[in-house]
Amino acid sequence: MQRTSFESQDCPAARALDSVGDWWSILILRDALQGMKRFDEFERSLGIGSNTLTRRLKHLVSEGLFERRQYEDRPPRYEYLLTPKGRDFYPVVVALFTWGSRHLPRDEVALRLGDRATGKERRTVVVDARTGERVTPDNTVLMPGPAATAGTRRRVELIRALQQEHIKSS
Amino acid sequence: MQRTSFESQDCPAARALDSVGDWWSILILRDALQGMKRFDEFERSLGIGSNTLTRRLKHLVSEGLFERRQYEDRPPRYEYLLTPKGRDFYPVVVALFTWGSRHLPRDEVALRLGDRATGKERRTVVVDARTGERVTPDNTVLMPGPAATAGTRRRVELIRALQQEHIKSS
Repeated sequence: MQRTSFESQDCPAARALDSVGDWWSILILRDALQGMKRFDEFERSLGIGSNTLTRRLKHLVSEGLFERRQYEDRPPRYEYLLTPKGRDFYPVVVALFTWGSRHLPRDEVALRLGDRATGKERRTVVVDARTGERVTPDNTVLMPGPAATAGTRRRVELIRALQQEHIKSS
Repeated sequence: MQRTSFESQDCPAARALDSVGDWWSILILRDALQGMKRFDEFERSLGIGSNTLTRRLKHLVSEGLFERRQYEDRPPRYEYLLTPKGRDFYPVVVALFTWGSRHLPRDEVALRLGDRATGKERRTVVVDARTGERVTPDNTVLMPGPAATAGTRRRVELIRALQQEHIKSS
């Protein structure tokens, strides 16, 4: 990994990116969330090299998104089960899927998400669980918490100033 | 970019990852969604090298997430305005933020998302816009569309078989 680490940043989105690690990891999680759990299932689905896959699975285990379990003795074989933390990554994958469907369309649709009960296509949105309101940049604000560094507080102030400007100019 | 391209894949989530490009791009979008638009604002916020930032902004312009606009003549200076496609990436950033807040907590909170009207903390969930139902792996299914390749159809069949197995064993 040649990336800069974002872990030290106060922003949970940056920490999330840092923890998950790379593009492959998100696609591995996508497949696991669809029910895959064995090395060869991931390998076939992704067309990924086995060294890369081994590394990414090991990373996701160490970050607590997968639990590795032996399911065969001879030869020893392992499966990778999503932890609650890994399962909870689903909204990120769904949000990517929804954005890709809307903004990178093809002439004809190859893959959609559907409601399992009715088979109707899902259109997904992110809402506030408390109010049910759709969450947008315009109705949402960053709030520094008790542990915010001075740099983070300055950043939040800058962002608020930019947003005031934006509201005035629109 | 040394990554394998996922563009040829039928899955819109894989295409989304391929279009956006890398971790930095997501953090640039995060900042733009908070109101930043100038080169030096991104540079200062991210602590990113100016060559890398130039490359990522150029990429995001070419992918249609930003529009570049000159705002000063001498010296020529440009700002980067989110297009509707770029603005629509917000749910992905929010989903990452929510996951990071929940699963990579610190002793004390540094940064939260709030409801701008009330200042109350937001807890966000992904729901089906039609039914309001919370979207989970268990109530959602992949559906091949008319343009699905034979490989994609096989993949969907494999996933359905795995899910049947999962339902039986749980």
